[in-house]
Amino acid sequence: LKRPSFSKRIPPGEQIERLVCDDCGWVHYVNPKIVVGAVATWEERYLLCLRAIEPRRGKWTIPAGFLEENETTEEGVLREAREEACVELEIEGLLGIYNVARVSQVQLLYKAVLKSPEFDIGEESLDVRLFAWDEIPWDEIAFSSVDWALRRHRLVAGREEFPPFSFPGS
Amino acid sequence: LKRPSFSKRIPPGEQIERLVCDDCGWVHYVNPKIVVGAVATWEERYLLCLRAIEPRRGKWTIPAGFLEENETTEEGVLREAREEACVELEIEGLLGIYNVARVSQVQLLYKAVLKSPEFDIGEESLDVRLFAWDEIPWDEIAFSSVDWALRRHRLVAGREEFPPFSFPGS
Repeated sequence: LKRPSFSKRIPPGEQIERLVCDDCGWVHYVNPKIVVGAVATWEERYLLCLRAIEPRRGKWTIPAGFLEENETTEEGVLREAREEACVELEIEGLLGIYNVARVSQVQLLYKAVLKSPEFDIGEESLDVRLFAWDEIPWDEIAFSSVDWALRRHRLVAGREEFPPFSFPGS
Repeated sequence: LKRPSFSKRIPPGEQIERLVCDDCGWVHYVNPKIVVGAVATWEERYLLCLRAIEPRRGKWTIPAGFLEENETTEEGVLREAREEACVELEIEGLLGIYNVARVSQVQLLYKAVLKSPEFDIGEESLDVRLFAWDEIPWDEIAFSSVDWALRRHRLVAGREEFPPFSFPGS
Protein backbone atom coordinates (compact mmCIF):
# COMPACT_ATOMS: atom_id res chain seq x y z
CA LEU A 1 0.00 0.00 0.00
CA LYS A 2 1.27 3.39 -1.06
CA ARG A 3 0.62 6.71 0.62
CA PRO A 4 -1.44 9.01 -1.63
CA SER A 5 0.51 11.96 -3.03
CA PHE A 6 -1.19 15.26 -3.86
CA SER A 7 0.10 18.35 -5.66
CA LYS A 8 -1.42 21.79 -6.02
CA ARG A 9 -2.36 22.08 -9.70
CA ILE A 10 -4.98 23.78 -11.87
CA PRO A 11 -7.22 20.97 -13.22
CA PRO A 12 -8.18 21.11 -16.95
CA GLY A 13 -10.87 23.72 -17.65
CA GLU A 14 -10.52 25.34 -14.24
CA GLN A 15 -9.08 28.60 -12.94
CA ILE A 16 -7.93 27.80 -9.42
CA GLU A 17 -5.21 25.55 -7.96
CA ARG A 18 -6.63 22.40 -6.32
CA LEU A 19 -5.08 19.44 -4.55
CA VAL A 20 -4.83 16.83 -7.32
CA CYS A 21 -3.77 13.18 -6.83
CA ASP A 22 -0.46 12.60 -8.62
CA ASP A 23 -1.45 9.05 -9.54
CA CYS A 24 -5.10 9.16 -10.60
CA GLY A 25 -5.89 12.85 -11.13
CA TRP A 26 -8.65 12.88 -8.51
CA VAL A 27 -9.39 16.46 -7.45
CA HIS A 28 -9.88 17.20 -3.76
CA TYR A 29 -12.40 20.07 -3.77
CA VAL A 30 -12.64 22.14 -0.60
CA ASN A 31 -15.70 24.33 -0.24
CA PRO A 32 -17.06 26.90 2.18
CA LYS A 33 -19.20 25.65 5.04
CA ILE A 34 -22.72 26.72 5.91
CA VAL A 35 -23.70 27.78 9.41
CA VAL A 36 -27.42 28.05 10.14
CA GLY A 37 -28.92 29.82 13.13
CA ALA A 38 -31.77 31.95 14.37
CA VAL A 39 -32.48 35.08 16.35
CA ALA A 40 -35.47 33.71 18.21
CA THR A 41 -37.81 35.68 20.43
CA TRP A 42 -40.70 35.17 22.84
CA GLU A 43 -42.72 38.32 23.54
CA GLU A 44 -39.82 40.62 22.57
CA ARG A 45 -37.32 38.69 24.64
CA TYR A 46 -34.28 37.17 22.94
CA LEU A 47 -33.23 33.55 23.33
CA LEU A 48 -29.51 33.22 24.08
CA CYS A 49 -27.39 30.20 25.00
CA LEU A 50 -24.25 30.24 27.14
CA ARG A 51 -21.69 28.16 25.25
CA ALA A 52 -20.47 25.00 26.99
CA ILE A 53 -17.93 24.27 24.24
CA GLU A 54 -14.99 25.96 22.60
CA PRO A 55 -14.57 28.28 20.86
CA ARG A 56 -15.93 31.01 23.14
CA ARG A 57 -16.95 28.78 26.01
CA GLY A 58 -18.80 30.87 28.63
CA LYS A 59 -20.00 33.47 26.11
CA TRP A 60 -23.57 33.99 24.91
CA THR A 61 -24.74 33.02 21.44
CA ILE A 62 -27.87 32.40 19.41
CA PRO A 63 -28.70 28.77 18.53
CA ALA A 64 -26.51 28.06 15.48
CA GLY A 65 -24.22 25.44 14.01
CA PHE A 66 -22.98 23.71 10.88
CA LEU A 67 -25.58 22.49 8.44
CA GLU A 68 -25.49 18.70 8.13
CA GLU A 69 -25.54 16.56 5.01
CA ASN A 70 -29.03 15.92 3.53
CA GLU A 71 -30.58 18.67 5.61
CA THR A 72 -32.35 21.81 4.40
CA THR A 73 -31.31 25.14 5.87
CA GLU A 74 -34.58 25.49 7.80
CA GLU A 75 -34.35 21.92 9.12
CA GLY A 76 -30.85 22.78 10.33
CA VAL A 77 -32.07 25.84 12.22
CA LEU A 78 -34.80 23.84 13.98
CA ARG A 79 -32.32 21.08 14.88
CA GLU A 80 -29.75 23.47 16.34
CA ALA A 81 -32.44 25.16 18.46
CA ARG A 82 -33.51 21.76 19.78
CA GLU A 83 -29.94 20.68 20.51
CA GLU A 84 -28.76 23.85 22.23
CA ALA A 85 -31.93 25.12 23.90
CA CYS A 86 -34.43 22.21 23.79
CA VAL A 87 -36.86 24.58 22.13
CA GLU A 88 -39.28 24.44 19.18
CA LEU A 89 -39.05 27.39 16.80
CA GLU A 90 -41.25 28.76 14.06
CA ILE A 91 -39.20 30.37 11.31
CA GLU A 92 -40.46 33.74 10.06
CA GLY A 93 -37.90 34.55 7.40
CA LEU A 94 -34.23 34.97 6.52
CA LEU A 95 -32.76 37.78 8.62
CA GLY A 96 -29.36 37.91 7.00
CA ILE A 97 -26.44 36.32 5.21
CA TYR A 98 -23.23 36.83 7.17
CA ASN A 99 -20.08 36.01 5.22
CA VAL A 100 -16.82 35.17 6.98
CA ALA A 101 -14.73 34.74 3.84
CA ARG A 102 -11.45 34.52 5.81
CA VAL A 103 -12.54 31.15 7.18
CA SER A 104 -14.78 30.24 4.22
CA GLN A 105 -18.00 30.36 6.17
CA VAL A 106 -21.48 31.49 5.12
CA GLN A 107 -23.92 32.03 7.96
CA LEU A 108 -27.63 31.92 7.12
CA LEU A 109 -29.32 33.58 10.09
CA TYR A 110 -33.10 33.40 10.34
CA LYS A 111 -35.74 35.34 12.28
CA ALA A 112 -37.85 33.00 14.38
CA VAL A 113 -40.23 32.89 17.30
CA LEU A 114 -40.54 30.30 20.05
CA LYS A 115 -43.66 28.18 19.67
CA SER A 116 -44.00 28.29 23.45
CA PRO A 117 -41.82 29.66 26.29
CA GLU A 118 -40.64 26.14 27.10
CA PHE A 119 -36.91 25.61 26.77
CA ASP A 120 -34.09 23.91 28.62
CA ILE A 121 -30.31 23.76 28.74
CA GLY A 122 -29.01 21.64 25.85
CA GLU A 123 -25.82 19.54 25.90
CA GLU A 124 -23.72 22.25 24.26
CA SER A 125 -24.98 24.98 26.61
CA LEU A 126 -24.23 25.95 30.21
CA ASP A 127 -27.34 28.12 30.47
CA VAL A 128 -30.23 29.28 28.28
CA ARG A 129 -32.20 32.46 28.93
CA LEU A 130 -34.69 34.91 27.45
CA PHE A 131 -33.30 38.46 27.62
CA ALA A 132 -35.19 41.70 27.21
CA TRP A 133 -33.34 43.94 24.74
CA ASP A 134 -31.89 46.08 27.52
CA GLU A 135 -30.69 43.04 29.45
CA ILE A 136 -28.65 41.51 26.60
CA PRO A 137 -25.07 41.01 27.87
CA TRP A 138 -23.44 42.80 24.91
CA ASP A 139 -19.93 42.49 26.35
CA GLU A 140 -20.32 38.75 26.73
CA ILE A 141 -21.53 37.88 23.21
CA ALA A 142 -19.57 35.01 21.65
CA PHE A 143 -19.25 36.16 18.03
CA SER A 144 -19.55 39.42 16.13
CA SER A 145 -22.10 37.77 13.81
CA VAL A 146 -24.37 37.27 16.85
CA ASP A 147 -24.11 40.95 17.80
CA TRP A 148 -24.78 41.85 14.13
CA ALA A 149 -27.81 39.56 13.88
CA LEU A 150 -29.39 40.77 17.13
CA ARG A 151 -29.07 44.41 16.04
CA ARG A 152 -30.43 43.65 12.56
CA HIS A 153 -33.40 41.85 14.13
CA ARG A 154 -34.17 45.03 16.07
CA LEU A 155 -34.36 46.95 12.75
CA VAL A 156 -37.08 44.68 11.33
CA ALA A 157 -38.95 43.88 14.56
CA GLY A 158 -42.67 43.98 13.83
CA ARG A 159 -42.23 43.78 10.04
CA GLU A 160 -43.80 40.81 8.34
CA GLU A 161 -41.77 41.06 5.14
CA PHE A 162 -38.22 42.32 4.76
CA PRO A 163 -35.23 41.63 2.55
CA PRO A 164 -32.34 39.89 4.33
CA PHE A 165 -29.38 41.94 5.45
CA SER A 166 -25.99 41.08 4.05
CA PHE A 167 -22.56 41.17 5.65
CA PRO A 168 -20.36 42.63 4.39
CA GLY A 169 -22.81 45.17 3.04
CA SER A 170 -25.90 46.10 4.98
CA LEU B 1 3.92 4.22 5.91
CA LYS B 2 0.53 2.89 6.85
CA ARG B 3 -2.73 3.39 5.01
CA PRO B 4 -5.18 5.44 7.12
CA SER B 5 -8.14 3.47 8.45
CA PHE B 6 -11.50 5.11 9.12
CA SER B 7 -14.63 3.80 10.84
CA LYS B 8 -18.12 5.25 11.06
CA ARG B 9 -18.52 6.29 14.69
CA ILE B 10 -20.36 8.93 16.73
CA PRO B 11 -17.65 11.25 18.12
CA PRO B 12 -17.91 12.31 21.80
CA GLY B 13 -20.59 14.96 22.35
CA GLU B 14 -22.09 14.52 18.89
CA GLN B 15 -25.28 12.96 17.53
CA ILE B 16 -24.36 11.74 14.06
CA GLU B 17 -22.00 9.03 12.75
CA ARG B 18 -18.84 10.46 11.17
CA LEU B 19 -15.80 8.92 9.54
CA VAL B 20 -13.27 8.81 12.41
CA CYS B 21 -9.60 7.81 12.09
CA ASP B 22 -9.00 4.55 13.98
CA ASP B 23 -5.50 5.67 15.01
CA CYS B 24 -5.71 9.33 15.96
CA GLY B 25 -9.46 10.06 16.32
CA TRP B 26 -9.43 12.76 13.63
CA VAL B 27 -13.00 13.38 12.41
CA HIS B 28 -13.62 13.75 8.69
CA TYR B 29 -16.54 16.20 8.55
CA VAL B 30 -18.52 16.31 5.31
CA ASN B 31 -20.75 19.34 4.80
CA PRO B 32 -23.29 20.60 2.27
CA LYS B 33 -21.98 22.69 -0.60
CA ILE B 34 -23.08 26.17 -1.58
CA VAL B 35 -24.06 27.06 -5.14
CA VAL B 36 -24.35 30.77 -5.95
CA GLY B 37 -26.06 32.17 -9.03
CA ALA B 38 -28.19 34.98 -10.39
CA VAL B 39 -31.28 35.61 -12.44
CA ALA B 40 -29.90 38.57 -14.37
CA THR B 41 -31.84 40.84 -16.69
CA TRP B 42 -31.29 43.68 -19.13
CA GLU B 43 -34.45 45.64 -19.96
CA GLU B 44 -36.74 42.76 -18.97
CA ARG B 45 -34.75 40.24 -20.94
CA TYR B 46 -33.23 37.26 -19.13
CA LEU B 47 -29.60 36.20 -19.42
CA LEU B 48 -29.21 32.47 -20.07
CA CYS B 49 -26.15 30.37 -20.87
CA LEU B 50 -26.12 27.18 -22.94
CA ARG B 51 -24.06 24.68 -20.94
CA ALA B 52 -20.85 23.44 -22.57
CA ILE B 53 -20.15 20.99 -19.75
CA GLU B 54 -21.85 18.06 -18.08
CA PRO B 55 -24.21 17.66 -16.38
CA ARG B 56 -26.91 18.94 -18.75
CA ARG B 57 -24.62 19.93 -21.60
CA GLY B 58 -26.67 21.68 -24.32
CA LYS B 59 -29.33 22.93 -21.88
CA TRP B 60 -29.92 26.53 -20.76
CA THR B 61 -29.04 27.78 -17.30
CA ILE B 62 -28.50 30.96 -15.33
CA PRO B 63 -24.90 31.84 -14.38
CA ALA B 64 -24.22 29.74 -11.27
CA GLY B 65 -21.63 27.50 -9.69
CA PHE B 66 -19.95 26.35 -6.49
CA LEU B 67 -18.82 29.03 -4.08
CA GLU B 68 -15.03 28.98 -3.68
CA GLU B 69 -12.96 29.14 -0.52
CA ASN B 70 -12.41 32.66 0.89
CA GLU B 71 -15.12 34.12 -1.29
CA THR B 72 -18.29 35.89 -0.19
CA THR B 73 -21.57 34.78 -1.73
CA GLU B 74 -21.91 38.00 -3.73
CA GLU B 75 -18.32 37.77 -4.97
CA GLY B 76 -19.11 34.24 -6.12
CA VAL B 77 -22.14 35.38 -8.09
CA LEU B 78 -20.14 38.09 -9.87
CA ARG B 79 -17.32 35.62 -10.66
CA GLU B 80 -19.65 32.99 -12.10
CA ALA B 81 -21.31 35.62 -14.33
CA ARG B 82 -17.89 36.69 -15.61
CA GLU B 83 -16.76 33.11 -16.20
CA GLU B 84 -19.89 31.87 -17.97
CA ALA B 85 -21.15 34.99 -19.76
CA CYS B 86 -18.27 37.51 -19.64
CA VAL B 87 -20.70 39.96 -18.08
CA GLU B 88 -20.65 42.45 -15.20
CA LEU B 89 -23.65 42.25 -12.88
CA GLU B 90 -25.10 44.50 -10.23
CA ILE B 91 -26.76 42.49 -7.47
CA GLU B 92 -30.17 43.75 -6.33
CA GLY B 93 -31.02 41.24 -3.63
CA LEU B 94 -31.43 37.59 -2.68
CA LEU B 95 -34.18 36.04 -4.80
CA GLY B 96 -34.30 32.67 -3.10
CA ILE B 97 -32.73 29.82 -1.20
CA TYR B 98 -33.16 26.55 -3.10
CA ASN B 99 -32.36 23.45 -1.06
CA VAL B 100 -31.44 20.16 -2.72
CA ALA B 101 -31.06 18.15 0.48
CA ARG B 102 -30.78 14.84 -1.40
CA VAL B 103 -27.38 15.93 -2.72
CA SER B 104 -26.55 18.24 0.21
CA GLN B 105 -26.65 21.42 -1.82
CA VAL B 106 -27.84 24.90 -0.87
CA GLN B 107 -28.33 27.27 -3.80
CA LEU B 108 -28.30 31.00 -3.03
CA LEU B 109 -29.90 32.61 -6.09
CA TYR B 110 -29.75 36.38 -6.42
CA LYS B 111 -31.67 38.96 -8.47
CA ALA B 112 -29.30 41.04 -10.57
CA VAL B 113 -29.14 43.35 -13.55
CA LEU B 114 -26.50 43.63 -16.24
CA LYS B 115 -24.41 46.79 -15.88
CA SER B 116 -24.44 47.02 -19.69
CA PRO B 117 -25.72 44.75 -22.48
CA GLU B 118 -22.16 43.58 -23.18
CA PHE B 119 -21.61 39.88 -22.76
CA ASP B 120 -19.84 37.04 -24.51
CA ILE B 121 -19.66 33.25 -24.52
CA GLY B 122 -17.58 32.05 -21.58
CA GLU B 123 -15.46 28.88 -21.48
CA GLU B 124 -18.18 26.79 -19.85
CA SER B 125 -20.87 27.97 -22.29
CA LEU B 126 -21.76 27.13 -25.90
CA ASP B 127 -23.95 30.21 -26.27
CA VAL B 128 -25.19 33.13 -24.19
CA ARG B 129 -28.36 35.08 -24.96
CA LEU B 130 -30.88 37.56 -23.61
CA PHE B 131 -34.40 36.12 -23.82
CA ALA B 132 -37.68 38.01 -23.53
CA TRP B 133 -39.95 36.18 -21.07
CA ASP B 134 -42.03 34.66 -23.88
CA GLU B 135 -38.92 33.45 -25.69
CA ILE B 136 -37.44 31.49 -22.76
CA PRO B 137 -36.86 27.87 -23.92
CA TRP B 138 -38.72 26.29 -20.98
CA ASP B 139 -38.34 22.76 -22.34
CA GLU B 140 -34.59 23.18 -22.63
CA ILE B 141 -33.83 24.47 -19.12
CA ALA B 142 -30.97 22.58 -17.44
CA PHE B 143 -32.20 22.34 -13.85
CA SER B 144 -35.51 22.64 -12.03
CA SER B 145 -33.93 25.25 -9.74
CA VAL B 146 -33.39 27.47 -12.81
CA ASP B 147 -37.04 27.14 -13.84
CA TRP B 148 -38.02 27.91 -10.22
CA ALA B 149 -35.77 30.97 -9.98
CA LEU B 150 -36.93 32.45 -13.30
CA ARG B 151 -40.59 32.14 -12.28
CA ARG B 152 -39.91 33.58 -8.81
CA HIS B 153 -38.12 36.52 -10.42
CA ARG B 154 -41.25 37.21 -12.44
CA LEU B 155 -43.25 37.47 -9.18
CA VAL B 156 -41.05 40.23 -7.76
CA ALA B 157 -40.18 42.04 -11.01
CA GLY B 158 -40.33 45.78 -10.39
CA ARG B 159 -40.21 45.42 -6.59
CA GLU B 160 -37.30 47.05 -4.84
CA GLU B 161 -37.61 45.10 -1.60
CA PHE B 162 -38.84 41.56 -1.17
CA PRO B 163 -38.18 38.60 1.13
CA PRO B 164 -36.38 35.69 -0.54
CA PHE B 165 -38.38 32.69 -1.65
CA SER B 166 -37.51 29.35 -0.15
CA PHE B 167 -37.53 25.88 -1.67
CA PRO B 168 -39.00 23.69 -0.39
CA GLY B 169 -41.61 26.13 0.85
CA SER B 170 -42.52 29.19 -1.18
